[in-house]
Amino acid sequence: MEKRWYVGADVGGTTIKLGIFDTQANDFCKKWEIPTNTENNGESIVSDLVFSIKETCSDIGISYNEICGIGIDVPGPVNDEGFVYECVNLGWKEVDLYTELKALSGISNIVIGNDANVAALGEMWRGDLGGCDSVVMVTLGTAVGGGVIINGKIHSGSKGAGGEIGHMTVNPDEPDSCGCGMHGCLEQYSSATGIARLARQMMNLDKDSKITAKDIADAAKAGDKEAGKVFDTAMKYLGIALSNVANVVDPQAFIIGGGVSKAGTMITDAVSTYYNMYSMKSLQGRKFFLAKLGNDAGIYGCIKLVLENKQ
Amino acid sequence: MEKRWYVGADVGGTTIKLGIFDTQANDFCKKWEIPTNTENNGESIVSDLVFSIKETCSDIGISYNEICGIGIDVPGPVNDEGFVYECVNLGWKEVDLYTELKALSGISNIVIGNDANVAALGEMWRGDLGGCDSVVMVTLGTAVGGGVIINGKIHSGSKGAGGEIGHMTVNPDEPDSCGCGMHGCLEQYSSATGIARLARQMMNLDKDSKITAKDIADAAKAGDKEAGKVFDTAMKYLGIALSNVANVVDPQAFIIGGGVSKAGTMITDAVSTYYNMYSMKSLQGRKFFLAKLGNDAGIYGCIKLVLENKQ
Repeated sequence: MEKRWYVGADVGGTTIKLGIFDTQANDFCKKWEIPTNTENNGESIVSDLVFSIKETCSDIGISYNEICGIGIDVPGPVNDEGFVYECVNLGWKEVDLYTELKALSGISNIVIGNDANVAALGEMWRGDLGGCDSVVMVTLGTAVGGGVIINGKIHSGSKGAGGEIGHMTVNPDEPDSCGCGMHGCLEQYSSATGIARLARQMMNLDKDSKITAKDIADAAKAGDKEAGKVFDTAMKYLGIALSNVANVVDPQAFIIGGGVSKAGTMITDAVSTYYNMYSMKSLQGRKFFLAKLGNDAGIYGCIKLVLENKQ
Repeated sequence: MEKRWYVGADVGGTTIKLGIFDTQANDFCKKWEIPTNTENNGESIVSDLVFSIKETCSDIGISYNEICGIGIDVPGPVNDEGFVYECVNLGWKEVDLYTELKALSGISNIVIGNDANVAALGEMWRGDLGGCDSVVMVTLGTAVGGGVIINGKIHSGSKGAGGEIGHMTVNPDEPDSCGCGMHGCLEQYSSATGIARLARQMMNLDKDSKITAKDIADAAKAGDKEAGKVFDTAMKYLGIALSNVANVVDPQAFIIGGGVSKAGTMITDAVSTYYNMYSMKSLQGRKFFLAKLGNDAGIYGCIKLVLENKQ
């Protein structure tokens, strides 16, 4: 059988993004998404996904039997055997995803990764990193996600928690608690919600204020001093955290993604300035790239995962 | 030729520790050391080392021609090709150590690593880690060194600065500067010199006070409250830093070495308590081991390096 068609599936708490990749064309021939059904602890997610792949194959005239592999990512820690420890947003506790997906799909060439790690892999493969293959990606969205790629491979760690950059402690004295239960995590300062939280505190806004990270970035860009201070504080904590990341793995470059990164080079300029300010000489001058693939980073990363799998 | 004899060379700023390893006996048959001559930018270090190996082979009745590989470590960043970027303590700027050592020794099977990384490898191989092969070692001596081992291999990073844990920023507001020129590095709190510095500050001692980290550890163990607070502060910063390390690479275990680690389980108990206090749930409960090999960790690591080399 010609090894031509592969499926990528980026499983999120709201939608599952899917794509059928054609190795001849070296790109997706079809991309689509389905809602994530988190009812009953997300028990139908895997079967919904398989059903939708079969249906789409039929729609676009590909035989399902010609699908020769599935790459899939989930929003939680997963080990190299495809065992998922927990995905709060999917309602999953421990799930042996590899075994379940193999049984339901009839496909054995399956590789499973954590969403942030896989997005980093996608950006490395199809983003614009000038050939760097040892990179750390940080995703500034509702939360702060992270992915560590070493020599072109995801580093997922001993229990799948590698790259959990959002929960590095950057301020042990923080009185407010993070979603994870700890205090002073990077996520409390540099995520979209963290920037809004900082703004409410530093600008003495009402605690119900609807101010957003985008409002702050826009106002800071327009020269507003108060907003500038909030933005700078968020970038300072991010710069310190990424400097500390570099002290551990010394990557060639960093990639900044997620909604907050839409502010563009204003973000990479600020974070790289603080990064260099807090980095020892031998770690200074690393490259900072903006993510290029947006919501498609996950499905590209899933394809890269499964294409590299040595069955 | 029977592949039996290998040389390990742990090059420090004061002495070079050497050993001839016998793969039949699976241990060193000879260990010795020579002074490090740092005069003229350390230009005689490599030739001194080769001369001493030849002399020792002759002394113990091994033909030098039967040495089938050299593993060597240096106190500075080095890349996978054996190019050394800088070793302040040796007087070296950029040195192509692989090429120089190969030319002078006539041996081409040479592997070169950074001292802290190689010590971590030695502890992984011959320490007492219950089979863990993804570990981070931190060495609390005059400085704070670090080594990152992932799946049994050293992770040296894109420019050899992987594992520079001592220069993670743990307190951006620190007014005093670290030896590296930055402010608030882990080394300023948790190295032997850092603990003494903290003691002088927190106990209001004269700035010329000769108090040592050992004095503090001994007094804290004996129940002295002031010393206990100093010791706790040092361990708190170390716990936070290692928690942040775990957020990046999620190792199975940590190894604590260096002079300060002679305080024993008092160190591992304190650092693991703070580590867990500042770690998200999925990173809690990692193992903390005391280093076992002392000053021999380097030469064991050097042998492990060269034995694994695929020529």
